[in-house]
Amino acid sequence: MQFSSALLENAVNEFSRLPGIGKKTALRLVLHLLKKESGDVQRFSETIARMRADIRFCQRCHNVADGDICSICSNSLRKQELICVVENIRDVIAIESTQQYNGLYHVLGGIISPLDAVGPDQLTIESLISRIRIEKTEEIIFALNPTIQGDTTIYYIQKKLQDLPVKITTIARGIAFGGELEYADEMTLGRSLQNRLPVEKYVRH
Amino acid sequence: MQFSSALLENAVNEFSRLPGIGKKTALRLVLHLLKKESGDVQRFSETIARMRADIRFCQRCHNVADGDICSICSNSLRKQELICVVENIRDVIAIESTQQYNGLYHVLGGIISPLDAVGPDQLTIESLISRIRIEKTEEIIFALNPTIQGDTTIYYIQKKLQDLPVKITTIARGIAFGGELEYADEMTLGRSLQNRLPVEKYVRH
Repeated sequence: MQFSSALLENAVNEFSRLPGIGKKTALRLVLHLLKKESGDVQRFSETIARMRADIRFCQRCHNVADGDICSICSNSLRKQELICVVENIRDVIAIESTQQYNGLYHVLGGIISPLDAVGPDQLTIESLISRIRIEKTEEIIFALNPTIQGDTTIYYIQKKLQDLPVKITTIARGIAFGGELEYADEMTLGRSLQNRLPVEKYVRH
Repeated sequence: MQFSSALLENAVNEFSRLPGIGKKTALRLVLHLLKKESGDVQRFSETIARMRADIRFCQRCHNVADGDICSICSNSLRKQELICVVENIRDVIAIESTQQYNGLYHVLGGIISPLDAVGPDQLTIESLISRIRIEKTEEIIFALNPTIQGDTTIYYIQKKLQDLPVKITTIARGIAFGGELEYADEMTLGRSLQNRLPVEKYVRH
């Protein structure tokens, strides 16, 4: 693609570095911004920059936060004795959108996957265990994608928690094996939280 | 969608205002930026803001420019007596990408379309006519989308130019009727520039 303006070309190049955005789509987005009010584009740009510069990760649950502790952890109306263990931030958003869960979260930051060279040490598993010890958690709910890696992660953490007086459950398998949690509809995902099973039953099966 | 961070939510909202980008895609893009180096995101944001703030429109051909005159108009190696008339900036980029055209451009800023309330006065037709008078242009090539509106625009401008000693051509109809110029492959578009026809033959047909 040949541009007669370096300003335009740079902007298109920046957009086309985003995942799933090719050159033609990038050009369409940039020309759209070019037609918008200058103030709108300024706000777009500042919002993105501020997000990256100021966002924090919650020291308690590792979710994204605007300060040291995220708005979920600092909400005293939520059940403090319940922790839902998820792979990443997107899964928190997916579960929050069901409006059927009122406990806390713990974001692992990935799942155990030897093929991708992700071991337990790269995840926030130690932080989860010390949390359960200190916070006297009554139940943890695993809400991981139903894959081999997800199952391995559940199995590993469950072993680590054997000696602690905590109930361990997992969301019901309403979601097809190999599916992606974040794309499930809110109905299915909400129902699978309500019908959670004790992990012994689940692993045996 | 429920977010635990206002910074994240604002960034997702900004992205989802772009055309063709829904909430889930916006979230994917924002989480991608969150994983990138802070400097990269800063550069992304600044490039977009600078593009919108500093970009100009060429006073001669109405193409995007970094200054008063665009890089195509100010390039003395290009044929100054040849003007290619296009609807918008995207069409300039499409034709430049064929690397088969070495003249100047004139961006109309749209085409005559009574249904969309776009008349000749909203386009840069007067500017084109005075350009042809002053610059002693030898040939103008119409490269408009092959639609009724495109044909109407060609007909209107051709009438206006009757008394001027300028050759009027149009790119060959290699492109299917109703098709979009900017999505044509470079081979077809380049060939259609080479095989341009005198406008009398074209209108009669």
